[in-house]
Amino acid sequence: MYLRFMIKVSILGSGNIGSHLIDVFTNTPSIELVQIYNRTIEKIKSYESRYAITDSIENLRDADIYIIAVSDDAINSFSKSLKLKNKLIVHTSGTKELTILEHERIGVFYPLQTFTKNVTLDFLTVPICIEANNDKDEKLLKALAHKISNNVSVINSLQRKKLHLAAVFVNNFVNHLYHIGNDICTENQVSFDLLKPLIKETAAKISSVLPYNAQTGPAKRNNEKTINTQLAQLNNSQKEIYSIFSKSIQQTYQ
Amino acid sequence: MYLRFMIKVSILGSGNIGSHLIDVFTNTPSIELVQIYNRTIEKIKSYESRYAITDSIENLRDADIYIIAVSDDAINSFSKSLKLKNKLIVHTSGTKELTILEHERIGVFYPLQTFTKNVTLDFLTVPICIEANNDKDEKLLKALAHKISNNVSVINSLQRKKLHLAAVFVNNFVNHLYHIGNDICTENQVSFDLLKPLIKETAAKISSVLPYNAQTGPAKRNNEKTINTQLAQLNNSQKEIYSIFSKSIQQTYQ
Repeated sequence: MYLRFMIKVSILGSGNIGSHLIDVFTNTPSIELVQIYNRTIEKIKSYESRYAITDSIENLRDADIYIIAVSDDAINSFSKSLKLKNKLIVHTSGTKELTILEHERIGVFYPLQTFTKNVTLDFLTVPICIEANNDKDEKLLKALAHKISNNVSVINSLQRKKLHLAAVFVNNFVNHLYHIGNDICTENQVSFDLLKPLIKETAAKISSVLPYNAQTGPAKRNNEKTINTQLAQLNNSQKEIYSIFSKSIQQTYQ
Repeated sequence: MYLRFMIKVSILGSGNIGSHLIDVFTNTPSIELVQIYNRTIEKIKSYESRYAITDSIENLRDADIYIIAVSDDAINSFSKSLKLKNKLIVHTSGTKELTILEHERIGVFYPLQTFTKNVTLDFLTVPICIEANNDKDEKLLKALAHKISNNVSVINSLQRKKLHLAAVFVNNFVNHLYHIGNDICTENQVSFDLLKPLIKETAAKISSVLPYNAQTGPAKRNNEKTINTQLAQLNNSQKEIYSIFSKSIQQTYQ
Protein backbone atom coordinates (compact mmCIF):
# COMPACT_ATOMS: atom_id res chain seq x y z
CA MET A 1 0.00 0.00 0.00
CA TYR A 2 2.80 2.41 0.89
CA LEU A 3 4.33 1.95 -2.54
CA ARG A 4 1.84 4.35 -4.08
CA PHE A 5 2.27 7.01 -1.40
CA MET A 6 4.90 9.70 -1.21
CA ILE A 7 7.29 9.08 1.68
CA LYS A 8 8.94 12.08 3.32
CA VAL A 9 12.54 11.43 4.35
CA SER A 10 15.30 13.48 5.97
CA ILE A 11 18.93 12.45 5.82
CA LEU A 12 21.14 13.27 8.78
CA GLY A 13 24.79 13.04 7.75
CA SER A 14 26.31 13.29 4.28
CA GLY A 15 29.22 10.88 4.20
CA ASN A 16 29.54 7.98 1.82
CA ILE A 17 26.17 6.29 2.48
CA GLY A 18 24.36 9.57 3.11
CA SER A 19 25.40 11.07 -0.21
CA HIS A 20 24.50 7.90 -2.14
CA LEU A 21 21.06 7.87 -0.51
CA ILE A 22 20.59 11.54 -1.42
CA ASP A 23 21.43 10.67 -5.06
CA VAL A 24 19.05 7.74 -5.32
CA PHE A 25 16.21 9.52 -3.47
CA THR A 26 16.66 12.48 -5.81
CA ASN A 27 15.95 10.15 -8.72
CA THR A 28 12.89 8.53 -7.08
CA PRO A 29 9.75 10.63 -7.65
CA SER A 30 7.73 9.00 -4.86
CA ILE A 31 10.31 9.91 -2.21
CA GLU A 32 10.34 13.47 -0.95
CA LEU A 33 13.72 14.45 0.45
CA VAL A 34 12.59 16.98 3.04
CA GLN A 35 15.91 18.09 4.48
CA ILE A 36 19.60 17.30 4.70
CA TYR A 37 21.48 17.79 7.96
CA ASN A 38 25.20 17.99 8.59
CA ARG A 39 26.88 19.55 11.64
CA THR A 40 29.27 21.24 9.21
CA ILE A 41 27.08 23.21 6.82
CA GLU A 42 29.88 23.60 4.22
CA LYS A 43 29.75 19.88 3.55
CA ILE A 44 26.17 20.09 2.26
CA LYS A 45 26.25 23.52 0.60
CA SER A 46 26.16 21.85 -2.84
CA TYR A 47 22.64 20.54 -2.09
CA GLU A 48 21.29 23.97 -1.12
CA SER A 49 19.83 24.89 -4.49
CA ARG A 50 17.67 21.79 -4.48
CA TYR A 51 17.01 20.87 -0.85
CA ALA A 52 16.54 22.44 2.57
CA ILE A 53 19.81 22.06 4.46
CA THR A 54 20.65 22.67 8.11
CA ASP A 55 23.42 22.28 10.64
CA SER A 56 21.08 22.53 13.60
CA ILE A 57 19.15 19.58 15.01
CA GLU A 58 16.78 22.11 16.55
CA ASN A 59 15.60 23.01 13.03
CA LEU A 60 14.67 19.56 11.72
CA ARG A 61 11.48 19.69 9.67
CA ASP A 62 8.60 17.27 9.72
CA ALA A 63 9.28 13.97 7.90
CA ASP A 64 8.08 10.33 7.97
CA ILE A 65 11.54 8.84 8.39
CA TYR A 66 14.79 10.32 9.71
CA ILE A 67 17.80 8.42 8.41
CA ILE A 68 20.93 8.77 10.53
CA ALA A 69 23.95 8.33 8.27
CA VAL A 70 26.79 9.28 10.62
CA SER A 71 29.80 7.10 11.51
CA ASP A 72 28.97 3.96 13.52
CA ASP A 73 30.55 5.17 16.74
CA ALA A 74 28.62 8.45 16.65
CA ILE A 75 25.13 6.95 16.12
CA ASN A 76 24.20 6.52 19.77
CA SER A 77 25.15 9.98 20.99
CA PHE A 78 23.77 11.62 17.87
CA SER A 79 20.43 9.85 18.20
CA LYS A 80 20.23 10.94 21.83
CA SER A 81 20.62 14.54 20.77
CA LEU A 82 17.50 14.35 18.58
CA LYS A 83 14.42 15.91 20.17
CA LEU A 84 11.93 14.30 17.76
CA LYS A 85 8.74 12.86 19.28
CA ASN A 86 6.79 9.91 17.83
CA LYS A 87 8.95 9.86 14.69
CA LEU A 88 10.64 6.90 13.01
CA ILE A 89 14.40 7.21 13.45
CA VAL A 90 16.66 4.71 11.67
CA HIS A 91 20.36 4.13 11.22
CA THR A 92 22.20 2.61 8.25
CA SER A 93 24.88 0.59 10.03
CA GLY A 94 25.69 -3.08 9.47
CA THR A 95 27.31 -3.54 12.85
CA LYS A 96 25.16 -1.60 15.32
CA GLU A 97 22.11 -3.02 17.09
CA LEU A 98 18.67 -1.61 16.46
CA THR A 99 18.40 -0.63 20.12
CA ILE A 100 21.41 1.68 19.97
CA LEU A 101 18.76 4.21 18.92
CA GLU A 102 17.16 5.31 22.19
CA HIS A 103 13.79 6.40 20.86
CA GLU A 104 10.23 5.10 20.75
CA ARG A 105 10.01 4.25 17.04
CA ILE A 106 13.30 2.92 15.71
CA GLY A 107 14.57 1.01 12.71
CA VAL A 108 17.51 0.05 10.53
CA PHE A 109 17.92 0.70 6.81
CA TYR A 110 21.15 -1.05 5.83
CA PRO A 111 22.17 -1.07 2.16
CA LEU A 112 24.67 -3.92 1.80
CA GLN A 113 27.04 -2.62 -0.85
CA THR A 114 30.42 -0.96 -1.24
CA PHE A 115 29.97 2.74 -1.89
CA THR A 116 32.60 4.91 -3.50
CA LYS A 117 32.13 8.67 -3.46
CA ASN A 118 31.35 10.00 -6.95
CA VAL A 119 30.78 6.51 -8.37
CA THR A 120 27.09 6.09 -9.20
CA LEU A 121 25.60 2.72 -8.45
CA ASP A 122 22.56 0.87 -9.74
CA PHE A 123 20.59 0.71 -6.51
CA LEU A 124 17.96 -1.68 -7.91
CA THR A 125 20.17 -4.69 -7.18
CA VAL A 126 21.54 -3.47 -3.83
CA PRO A 127 20.22 -5.65 -0.97
CA ILE A 128 18.55 -3.46 1.63
CA CYS A 129 18.26 -5.03 5.07
CA ILE A 130 15.40 -3.70 7.14
CA GLU A 131 14.60 -3.92 10.84
CA ALA A 132 12.10 -2.05 13.04
CA ASN A 133 10.71 -2.33 16.55
CA ASN A 134 7.06 -2.46 15.42
CA ASP A 135 5.13 -3.87 12.46
CA LYS A 136 3.85 -0.58 11.13
CA ASP A 137 7.32 0.93 10.85
CA GLU A 138 8.69 -2.28 9.38
CA LYS A 139 6.11 -1.88 6.62
CA LEU A 140 7.02 1.77 6.14
CA LEU A 141 10.74 0.95 5.86
CA LYS A 142 9.99 -1.90 3.46
CA ALA A 143 7.97 0.48 1.31
CA LEU A 144 10.82 2.99 1.27
CA ALA A 145 13.33 0.26 0.40
CA HIS A 146 11.15 -1.14 -2.40
CA LYS A 147 11.02 2.29 -3.99
CA ILE A 148 14.75 2.11 -4.70
CA SER A 149 15.65 -1.62 -4.73
CA ASN A 150 14.26 -4.96 -5.88
CA ASN A 151 16.23 -6.74 -3.17
CA VAL A 152 14.70 -6.07 0.26
CA SER A 153 15.01 -8.35 3.32
CA VAL A 154 13.91 -8.12 6.92
CA ILE A 155 16.73 -9.38 9.14
CA ASN A 156 17.44 -8.94 12.83
CA SER A 157 20.39 -7.18 14.46
CA LEU A 158 22.41 -10.35 15.10
CA GLN A 159 21.99 -11.58 11.52
CA ARG A 160 22.91 -8.14 10.20
CA LYS A 161 26.06 -8.11 12.32
CA LYS A 162 27.10 -11.51 10.95
CA LEU A 163 26.28 -10.46 7.41
CA HIS A 164 28.48 -7.43 7.84
CA LEU A 165 31.25 -9.65 9.17
CA ALA A 166 30.95 -11.91 6.12
CA ALA A 167 31.07 -8.75 3.98
CA VAL A 168 34.45 -7.86 5.51
CA PHE A 169 35.80 -11.15 4.13
CA VAL A 170 34.25 -10.94 0.65
CA ASN A 171 34.88 -7.22 0.18
CA ASN A 172 37.69 -5.77 2.36
CA PHE A 173 39.89 -8.87 2.34
CA VAL A 174 39.16 -9.74 -1.29
CA ASN A 175 40.16 -6.23 -2.30
CA HIS A 176 43.42 -6.61 -0.36
CA LEU A 177 44.14 -9.78 -2.36
CA TYR A 178 43.56 -7.74 -5.53
CA HIS A 179 46.10 -5.27 -4.16
CA ILE A 180 48.65 -8.04 -3.59
CA GLY A 181 48.00 -9.34 -7.12
CA ASN A 182 48.61 -5.84 -8.43
CA ASP A 183 51.85 -5.62 -6.43
CA ILE A 184 53.16 -8.89 -7.85
CA CYS A 185 52.36 -7.70 -11.38
CA THR A 186 54.00 -4.30 -10.88
CA GLU A 187 57.14 -5.82 -9.38
CA ASN A 188 57.49 -8.04 -12.45
CA GLN A 189 56.54 -5.58 -15.18
CA VAL A 190 53.38 -7.37 -16.23
CA SER A 191 50.12 -5.51 -16.63
CA PHE A 192 47.53 -5.96 -13.86
CA ASP A 193 44.94 -5.63 -16.64
CA LEU A 194 45.73 -9.21 -17.62
CA LEU A 195 44.19 -10.34 -14.32
CA LYS A 196 40.97 -8.37 -14.64
CA PRO A 197 38.99 -10.88 -16.73
CA LEU A 198 39.96 -13.60 -14.21
CA ILE A 199 38.87 -11.41 -11.29
CA LYS A 200 35.53 -10.76 -12.98
CA GLU A 201 34.93 -14.42 -13.83
CA THR A 202 35.89 -15.57 -10.31
CA ALA A 203 33.20 -13.28 -8.91
CA ALA A 204 30.68 -14.21 -11.61
CA LYS A 205 31.16 -17.94 -11.13
CA ILE A 206 29.68 -18.06 -7.64
CA SER A 207 26.34 -16.75 -8.87
CA SER A 208 25.75 -20.28 -10.17
CA VAL A 209 28.31 -22.47 -8.33
CA LEU A 210 28.88 -22.70 -4.56
CA PRO A 211 32.33 -21.31 -3.62
CA TYR A 212 33.09 -24.71 -2.10
CA ASN A 213 32.65 -26.32 -5.53
CA ALA A 214 34.36 -23.52 -7.47
CA GLN A 215 37.69 -23.89 -5.64
CA THR A 216 40.75 -24.76 -7.75
CA GLY A 217 44.53 -24.42 -7.34
CA PRO A 218 47.52 -26.16 -5.76
CA ALA A 219 46.20 -26.06 -2.17
CA LYS A 220 42.91 -27.67 -3.20
CA ARG A 221 44.87 -30.37 -5.06
CA ASN A 222 47.20 -30.71 -2.07
CA ASN A 223 50.16 -30.13 -4.39
CA GLU A 224 52.94 -29.42 -1.87
CA LYS A 225 55.57 -29.13 -4.57
CA THR A 226 53.83 -26.23 -6.33
CA ILE A 227 52.95 -24.64 -2.98
CA ASN A 228 56.62 -24.60 -1.98
CA THR A 229 57.77 -23.31 -5.37
CA GLN A 230 55.27 -20.46 -5.14
CA LEU A 231 56.08 -19.65 -1.51
CA ALA A 232 59.74 -19.22 -2.44
CA GLN A 233 58.82 -16.41 -4.87
CA LEU A 234 57.00 -14.22 -2.31
CA ASN A 235 58.02 -11.54 0.16
CA ASN A 236 57.40 -12.10 3.88
CA SER A 237 54.00 -10.49 4.12
CA GLN A 238 52.75 -12.24 0.96
CA LYS A 239 54.24 -15.52 2.20
CA GLU A 240 52.28 -15.31 5.45
CA ILE A 241 48.99 -14.87 3.59
CA TYR A 242 49.86 -17.60 1.09
CA SER A 243 50.65 -20.08 3.90
CA ILE A 244 47.51 -19.36 5.91
CA PHE A 245 45.31 -19.76 2.82
CA SER A 246 47.00 -22.94 1.69
CA LYS A 247 46.52 -24.42 5.17
CA SER A 248 42.92 -23.27 5.40
CA ILE A 249 42.03 -24.57 1.92
CA GLN A 250 43.73 -27.89 2.63
CA GLN A 251 41.75 -28.23 5.88
CA THR A 252 38.51 -27.41 4.04
CA TYR A 253 38.99 -30.24 1.53
CA GLN A 254 40.79 -32.82 3.63
CA MET B 1 48.81 -12.19 -42.49
CA TYR B 2 48.13 -15.46 -40.67
CA LEU B 3 44.69 -14.24 -39.64
CA ARG B 4 43.29 -15.00 -43.07
CA PHE B 5 44.79 -18.46 -43.25
CA MET B 6 43.44 -21.67 -41.85
CA ILE B 7 45.59 -22.95 -38.99
CA LYS B 8 45.72 -26.69 -38.37
CA VAL B 9 45.84 -27.60 -34.69
CA SER B 10 45.93 -30.82 -32.70
CA ILE B 11 45.09 -30.96 -29.01
CA LEU B 12 46.92 -33.45 -26.84
CA GLY B 13 45.03 -33.94 -23.59
CA SER B 14 41.36 -33.32 -22.85
CA GLY B 15 41.19 -32.03 -19.28
CA ASN B 16 39.77 -28.68 -18.26
CA ILE B 17 41.83 -26.46 -20.60
CA GLY B 18 41.93 -29.03 -23.39
CA SER B 19 38.16 -29.40 -23.54
CA HIS B 20 37.60 -25.64 -23.46
CA LEU B 21 40.07 -25.19 -26.32
CA ILE B 22 38.28 -27.92 -28.28
CA ASP B 23 34.99 -26.03 -27.75
CA VAL B 24 36.29 -22.66 -28.85
CA PHE B 25 38.25 -24.05 -31.82
CA THR B 26 35.10 -25.89 -32.91
CA ASN B 27 33.35 -22.53 -33.12
CA THR B 28 36.18 -20.83 -35.04
CA PRO B 29 35.92 -21.50 -38.80
CA SER B 30 39.52 -20.54 -39.58
CA ILE B 31 40.95 -23.10 -37.17
CA GLU B 32 41.02 -26.71 -38.30
CA LEU B 33 41.05 -29.11 -35.38
CA VAL B 34 42.97 -31.96 -36.96
CA GLN B 35 43.02 -34.48 -34.13
CA ILE B 36 42.43 -34.97 -30.41
CA TYR B 37 44.72 -37.20 -28.39
CA ASN B 38 44.20 -38.74 -24.97
CA ARG B 39 46.03 -41.75 -23.55
CA THR B 40 42.64 -43.04 -22.40
CA ILE B 41 40.50 -43.20 -25.52
CA GLU B 42 37.22 -43.39 -23.54
CA LYS B 43 37.74 -39.83 -22.33
CA ILE B 44 37.53 -38.47 -25.89
CA LYS B 45 34.96 -40.87 -27.37
CA SER B 46 32.36 -38.09 -27.37
CA TYR B 47 34.41 -36.17 -29.95
CA GLU B 48 34.67 -39.14 -32.33
CA SER B 49 31.74 -38.23 -34.56
CA ARG B 50 33.26 -34.86 -35.34
CA TYR B 51 37.04 -35.22 -35.02
CA ALA B 52 39.81 -37.76 -35.51
CA ILE B 53 40.74 -39.11 -32.08
CA THR B 54 43.63 -41.28 -30.99
CA ASP B 55 45.28 -42.73 -27.90
CA SER B 56 48.57 -43.37 -29.67
CA ILE B 57 51.27 -40.75 -30.09
CA GLU B 58 52.58 -42.84 -32.98
CA ASN B 59 49.45 -41.94 -34.94
CA LEU B 60 49.54 -38.14 -34.69
CA ARG B 61 48.52 -36.53 -37.98
CA ASP B 62 50.09 -33.55 -39.66
CA ALA B 63 49.24 -30.18 -38.09
CA ASP B 64 50.73 -26.67 -37.77
CA ILE B 65 50.58 -26.57 -33.99
CA TYR B 66 50.42 -29.32 -31.37
CA ILE B 67 48.96 -28.08 -28.10
CA ILE B 68 49.91 -30.12 -25.04
CA ALA B 69 47.13 -29.78 -22.47
CA VAL B 70 48.19 -32.35 -19.89
CA SER B 71 48.82 -31.68 -16.18
CA ASP B 72 51.82 -29.45 -15.43
CA ASP B 73 53.94 -32.21 -13.94
CA ALA B 74 53.42 -34.47 -16.96
CA ILE B 75 54.35 -31.90 -19.64
CA ASN B 76 58.08 -32.63 -19.76
CA SER B 77 57.89 -36.41 -20.02
CA PHE B 78 54.94 -36.27 -22.39
CA SER B 79 56.72 -33.85 -24.72
CA LYS B 80 59.78 -36.10 -24.75
CA SER B 81 57.61 -38.97 -25.92
CA LEU B 82 56.55 -37.03 -29.05
CA LYS B 83 58.40 -38.08 -32.18
CA LEU B 84 57.38 -35.01 -34.23
CA LYS B 85 60.08 -33.40 -36.37
CA ASN B 86 60.19 -29.67 -37.24
CA LYS B 87 56.73 -29.07 -35.72
CA LEU B 88 55.62 -26.34 -33.34
CA ILE B 89 54.86 -27.91 -29.96
CA VAL B 90 53.36 -25.72 -27.23
CA HIS B 91 52.08 -26.15 -23.69
CA THR B 92 49.32 -24.23 -21.91
CA SER B 93 50.77 -23.93 -18.41
CA GLY B 94 51.13 -20.76 -16.37
CA THR B 95 53.90 -22.13 -14.20
CA LYS B 96 56.17 -24.12 -16.51
CA GLU B 97 59.06 -22.62 -18.48
CA LEU B 98 59.05 -22.60 -22.25
CA THR B 99 62.17 -24.77 -22.28
CA ILE B 100 60.50 -27.64 -20.45
CA LEU B 101 59.53 -28.66 -23.98
CA GLU B 102 62.63 -30.39 -25.35
CA HIS B 103 62.04 -29.83 -29.06
CA GLU B 104 63.32 -27.60 -31.82
CA ARG B 105 60.26 -25.37 -32.26
CA ILE B 106 58.52 -24.68 -28.97
CA GLY B 107 55.99 -22.25 -27.56
CA VAL B 108 53.47 -21.46 -24.86
CA PHE B 109 49.77 -20.75 -25.33
CA TYR B 110 48.49 -19.81 -21.87
CA PRO B 111 44.85 -18.69 -21.51
CA LEU B 112 44.68 -16.81 -18.19
CA GLN B 113 41.22 -17.64 -16.95
CA THR B 114 39.41 -19.97 -14.57
CA PHE B 115 37.83 -22.82 -16.48
CA THR B 116 34.98 -24.90 -15.17
CA LYS B 117 34.01 -28.08 -17.00
CA ASN B 118 30.65 -27.68 -18.76
CA VAL B 119 30.55 -23.91 -18.19
CA THR B 120 30.99 -22.13 -21.52
CA LEU B 121 33.08 -19.02 -21.48
CA ASP B 122 33.32 -16.00 -23.73
CA PHE B 123 36.87 -16.50 -24.99
CA LEU B 124 37.05 -13.09 -26.69
CA THR B 125 37.99 -11.40 -23.40
CA VAL B 126 40.31 -14.13 -22.11
CA PRO B 127 43.93 -12.92 -22.03
CA ILE B 128 46.12 -15.32 -23.98
CA CYS B 129 49.80 -15.17 -23.12
CA ILE B 130 52.09 -16.27 -25.91
CA GLU B 131 55.75 -17.24 -25.96
CA ALA B 132 57.90 -18.95 -28.59
CA ASN B 133 61.59 -19.63 -29.23
CA ASN B 134 61.60 -18.01 -32.67
CA ASP B 135 59.87 -15.08 -34.36
CA LYS B 136 58.04 -17.07 -36.97
CA ASP B 137 56.37 -19.31 -34.44
CA GLU B 138 55.59 -16.35 -32.19
CA LYS B 139 53.68 -14.88 -35.13
CA LEU B 140 51.91 -18.15 -35.77
CA LEU B 141 50.84 -18.46 -32.11
CA LYS B 142 49.72 -14.84 -32.08
CA ALA B 143 47.62 -15.49 -35.16
CA LEU B 144 46.03 -18.52 -33.53
CA ALA B 145 45.35 -16.56 -30.35
CA HIS B 146 43.83 -13.62 -32.23
CA LYS B 147 41.38 -15.98 -33.90
CA ILE B 148 39.74 -16.67 -30.53
CA SER B 149 40.58 -13.66 -28.33
CA ASN B 150 40.93 -9.88 -28.49
CA ASN B 151 43.38 -9.94 -25.60
CA VAL B 152 46.74 -11.38 -26.72
CA SER B 153 50.11 -10.62 -25.10
CA VAL B 154 53.64 -11.87 -25.63
CA ILE B 155 55.24 -12.45 -22.21
CA ASN B 156 58.28 -14.44 -21.16
CA SER B 157 58.42 -17.48 -18.88
CA LEU B 158 59.37 -15.55 -15.75
CA GLN B 159 56.60 -12.99 -16.22
CA ARG B 160 54.10 -15.76 -16.90
CA LYS B 161 55.12 -17.56 -13.70
CA LYS B 162 54.60 -14.36 -11.68
CA LEU B 163 51.29 -13.69 -13.38
CA HIS B 164 50.16 -17.17 -12.45
CA LEU B 165 51.25 -16.56 -8.87
CA ALA B 166 49.24 -13.34 -8.76
CA ALA B 167 46.31 -15.32 -10.18
CA VAL B 168 46.49 -17.69 -7.20
CA PHE B 169 45.83 -14.68 -4.94
CA VAL B 170 43.03 -13.10 -6.99
CA ASN B 171 41.32 -16.35 -7.90
CA ASN B 172 42.08 -19.28 -5.54
CA PHE B 173 42.37 -17.23 -2.37
CA VAL B 174 39.54 -14.86 -3.27
CA ASN B 175 37.27 -17.85 -3.85
CA HIS B 176 38.24 -19.23 -0.44
CA LEU B 177 37.16 -15.91 1.11
CA TYR B 178 33.82 -16.33 -0.68
CA HIS B 179 33.62 -19.77 0.91
CA ILE B 180 34.25 -18.33 4.38
CA GLY B 181 31.60 -15.66 3.73
CA ASN B 182 29.19 -18.40 2.74
CA ASP B 183 30.04 -20.33 5.93
CA ILE B 184 29.36 -17.31 8.15
CA CYS B 185 26.00 -16.78 6.41
CA THR B 186 24.97 -20.43 6.69
CA GLU B 187 25.92 -20.62 10.37
CA ASN B 188 23.70 -17.62 11.05
CA GLN B 189 20.74 -18.45 8.81
CA VAL B 190 21.19 -15.55 6.45
CA SER B 191 21.19 -16.04 2.70
CA PHE B 192 24.58 -15.91 0.97
CA ASP B 193 22.67 -14.38 -1.97
CA LEU B 194 22.64 -11.10 -0.03
CA LEU B 195 26.42 -10.89 -0.50
CA LYS B 196 26.44 -11.54 -4.23
CA PRO B 197 25.85 -7.96 -5.41
CA LEU B 198 28.68 -6.83 -3.09
CA ILE B 199 31.00 -9.52 -4.46
CA LYS B 200 30.20 -8.46 -8.02
CA GLU B 201 30.69 -4.75 -7.32
CA THR B 202 33.97 -5.37 -5.43
CA ALA B 203 35.33 -7.11 -8.55
CA ALA B 204 33.84 -4.50 -10.92
CA LYS B 205 35.26 -1.57 -8.97
CA ILE B 206 38.91 -2.35 -9.74
CA SER B 207 38.33 -2.02 -13.48
CA SER B 208 38.37 1.74 -12.88
CA VAL B 209 39.98 2.20 -9.42
CA LEU B 210 43.33 0.79 -8.23
CA PRO B 211 42.79 -1.81 -5.46
CA TYR B 212 44.98 0.35 -3.23
CA ASN B 213 42.47 3.19 -3.56
CA ALA B 214 39.38 0.98 -3.37
CA GLN B 215 40.21 -0.40 0.09
CA THR B 216 37.69 0.25 2.89
CA GLY B 217 36.92 -1.33 6.26
CA PRO B 218 38.03 -1.30 9.90
CA ALA B 219 41.65 -2.36 9.22
CA LYS B 220 42.11 0.42 6.67
CA ARG B 221 40.67 2.91 9.20
CA ASN B 222 42.86 1.38 11.91
CA ASN B 223 39.73 0.86 14.04
CA GLU B 224 41.04 -1.56 16.69
CA LYS B 225 37.73 -1.58 18.56
CA THR B 226 35.75 -2.92 15.60
CA ILE B 227 38.57 -5.32 14.71
CA ASN B 228 38.45 -6.84 18.20
CA THR B 229 34.63 -7.03 18.22
CA GLN B 230 34.70 -8.84 14.91
CA LEU B 231 37.54 -11.18 15.89
CA ALA B 232 35.52 -12.30 18.93
CA GLN B 233 32.74 -13.56 16.63
CA LEU B 234 34.91 -15.90 14.55
CA ASN B 235 36.08 -19.50 14.85
CA ASN B 236 39.81 -20.24 15.07
CA SER B 237 40.51 -20.71 11.38
CA GLN B 238 38.50 -17.60 10.42
CA LYS B 239 40.20 -15.66 13.23
CA GLU B 240 43.64 -16.49 11.87
CA ILE B 241 42.74 -15.17 8.41
CA TYR B 242 41.03 -12.10 9.85
CA SER B 243 44.14 -11.25 11.93
CA ILE B 244 46.62 -11.69 9.12
CA PHE B 245 44.55 -9.51 6.79
CA SER B 246 43.99 -6.79 9.37
CA LYS B 247 47.72 -6.68 10.04
CA SER B 248 48.64 -6.70 6.36
CA ILE B 249 46.09 -3.98 5.50
CA GLN B 250 47.26 -1.84 8.43
CA GLN B 251 50.87 -2.18 7.24
CA THR B 252 49.86 -1.25 3.70
CA TYR B 253 48.30 2.04 4.82
CA GLN B 254 50.52 2.99 7.75
